Amino acid sequence: MKKRKEKVAFQGELGAFSQVAVRQLLGEEVQPAPCQRFEEVFESLASGAAEAAVIPIENTLHGSVHENYDHLVRYELPIVGETSVRIVHNLIALPGVSFGKIRRVFSHPVALNQCLRFFTANPGIERVPFYDTAGSVKMLAEERLRDAGAIASAVAAEMYGARILRRSIEDDRKNFTRFFLLRRPKDGRKIPEGARKGYKTSLVFTTRNVPGALFRSLSAFALRDLNLTKIESRPLRGKPWEYLFYLDFLGRVDDPKVRNALNHLGELADFLRVLGCYPRGD
Amino acid sequence: MKKRKEKVAFQGELGAFSQVAVRQLLGEEVQPAPCQRFEEVFESLASGAAEAAVIPIENTLHGSVHENYDHLVRYELPIVGETSVRIVHNLIALPGVSFGKIRRVFSHPVALNQCLRFFTANPGIERVPFYDTAGSVKMLAEERLRDAGAIASAVAAEMYGARILRRSIEDDRKNFTRFFLLRRPKDGRKIPEGARKGYKTSLVFTTRNVPGALFRSLSAFALRDLNLTKIESRPLRGKPWEYLFYLDFLGRVDDPKVRNALNHLGELADFLRVLGCYPRGD
Repeated sequence: MKKRKEKVAFQGELGAFSQVAVRQLLGEEVQPAPCQRFEEVFESLASGAAEAAVIPIENTLHGSVHENYDHLVRYELPIVGETSVRIVHNLIALPGVSFGKIRRVFSHPVALNQCLRFFTANPGIERVPFYDTAGSVKMLAEERLRDAGAIASAVAAEMYGARILRRSIEDDRKNFTRFFLLRRPKDGRKIPEGARKGYKTSLVFTTRNVPGALFRSLSAFALRDLNLTKIESRPLRGKPWEYLFYLDFLGRVDDPKVRNALNHLGELADFLRVLGCYPRGD
Repeated sequence: MKKRKEKVAFQGELGAFSQVAVRQLLGEEVQPAPCQRFEEVFESLASGAAEAAVIPIENTLHGSVHENYDHLVRYELPIVGETSVRIVHNLIALPGVSFGKIRRVFSHPVALNQCLRFFTANPGIERVPFYDTAGSVKMLAEERLRDAGAIASAVAAEMYGARILRRSIEDDRKNFTRFFLLRRPKDGRKIPEGARKGYKTSLVFTTRNVPGALFRSLSAFALRDLNLTKIESRPLRGKPWEYLFYLDFLGRVDDPKVRNALNHLGELADFLRVLGCYPRGD
């Protein structure tokens, strides 16, 4: 008997880079559930409409996605995995459309700007800004455009039955987005065993902005030789002088040393929430 | 004799939110110089084509713009001011087009998604994703569309001779972007006197990721009661275990206490660069 495919929510059109992350985390045997907004992604996991959700949390060029940190705090859906996706841009066209036929290329302006070397080398091709990368492939297919291409992920080509004419035309190969895999609390309570590269714990806390408050908070980790991999402050709007911090460190929440560090931090913080403990991704 | 208007570079179309920041920082008597990419903004200030530049550095929903931090380090153009712009979305149409005529509204998908209450209240109006907010007003004007609107800044309406039909239709009034004003080194060397709210200093440094390295670095500030207003780590790609930190604190670089803190940090950091010292913005 065939097992029902797990439904996985993510933001964006089919073929979005979030769907690439879904594949890296869960393989191809899942049912993609695209959502328009990040809030819908969380809502659909919380309500049970989806069994898992994948969200971007930071990009090497564009920084952390604060909106998703807000949703993580509000929905209390645990992080159970992470992965990093390299943003690879491909020139995509409909089947039978050869490179020589391409007169214009649609994509999100950020993606167009990340492929300047390609456009310099091909001055006869016009850049046309569009609202989305995968959405531009979808549009090629819907409008049956035979003189145009799109720049998007390989998964987008596959989703809309299009072909890749040029692979990896992005200028910068150091453009990565980090994604979290989320489950409902009952499915995410147990830390999966046997992580190859150890474990990470993510948390959020707030302190009063008295000088040295952060310094004292970090002592909870420094005094126990726990290694931080991310820290970020965010001013709380409407609450001058109060800050929220995102912090990731290497360790498992059930390790006694980590438990002591969290207790110590709890004494100093006004608010503290562990967002998840998960195998360290690539 | 009329003074030649100062040329100020920013990224985006005329009417972009960056241009709103230009006005908050420098008033209306400047010549806006829109650029397609952030790198062009820096290039145009460095080369002397523009006298000043305004760049977004962080947004309350979308986080820090790492790309601009990279350019700040590379170009060595000092930060001489900061301001925060509230992202106010307006429904804009051509002159003579009344609200009842509007059948579809163009804008960047992020802006459309930030005005959901408006679309719920007006179910007869279709949302059309477009590559840019100000660019959608420009398009209305170029195509002379009389059944369509756009969502963008008030400055965009003004730039393209359009009218605001509904002001401030965004769902969330806590969406702010922080911008930096940059000058060339010779114009930005002297800290402007008489700041109402004191001064801020921004810097970037790197440490080896030995446990406690950040903790020790922060001691340079904590031991001198200097108040941090931002800290953010960024893993250095290709250099595992090395991190870059962005840090803002309250104080002037010519204050002896600050000088001592910077010397102390310099002993601990592999790399340290002060990006600027400027009057604290609103």
